[in-house]
Amino acid sequence: MIRVGLHLVVELYGCKREDISTLEVYKEKIERVVNKSGVTVLSSYHHQFNPHGVTSIFLLAESHFTVHTWPEYNYMAVDIFTCGSAEKAWQVLECLKEEFKPVKVKVIDIIRGIPYEEVQRVSAPIPE
Amino acid sequence: MIRVGLHLVVELYGCKREDISTLEVYKEKIERVVNKSGVTVLSSYHHQFNPHGVTSIFLLAESHFTVHTWPEYNYMAVDIFTCGSAEKAWQVLECLKEEFKPVKVKVIDIIRGIPYEEVQRVSAPIPE
Repeated sequence: MIRVGLHLVVELYGCKREDISTLEVYKEKIERVVNKSGVTVLSSYHHQFNPHGVTSIFLLAESHFTVHTWPEYNYMAVDIFTCGSAEKAWQVLECLKEEFKPVKVKVIDIIRGIPYEEVQRVSAPIPE
Repeated sequence: MIRVGLHLVVELYGCKREDISTLEVYKEKIERVVNKSGVTVLSSYHHQFNPHGVTSIFLLAESHFTVHTWPEYNYMAVDIFTCGSAEKAWQVLECLKEEFKPVKVKVIDIIRGIPYEEVQRVSAPIPE
């Protein structure tokens, strides 16, 4: 398999409502996560949902980092996809845990990429 | 479990290089996918990598839709996360397949959300 990157599908449970309800509080925290973890941000966008809950999308040179929060469940749904260095993905997760202090974390780690047989096959011309 | 949404982790193999190498060709196609699939785009961002390969990030009212391409492998790494309607996620995938005509598709479908026991536990005050 040709590994293009590591994708961590992360559920953070038991976060504090006040940390994940409004951009006012949350944005400073998530930006600290990004800065500490050493990823390269090409673009970022944050959105405040009504009445509460936020979303962040970071386009990284390494791929992407997204966050969606459900304060009513003290829950954050996070995706960290880094091509190249797998370490960076785990580093983002560590910084997240430090900043948001979840009671419980669930991680599914997925290696993204191409099976060798596919690469061999597609290197031949693809039929129209 | 409280389902907040459906997340499809999608690998598209055997896409045409010319369709996924430059924003010039690719962007029109991906925007058609988004328009046809009926999701609500809050914000979008596209990036051209050098010498080839592109990334798109769509922040949706439903959650997010991201694409990263590796034209050298005829490969697209796609994530479709829709809260609320699971149908919409599958609809995006159908539109993607119509537009990019991959030779093979691999999908991991993940229900994002909170186990009941977690919700009960976190409704109590969380210790500092």
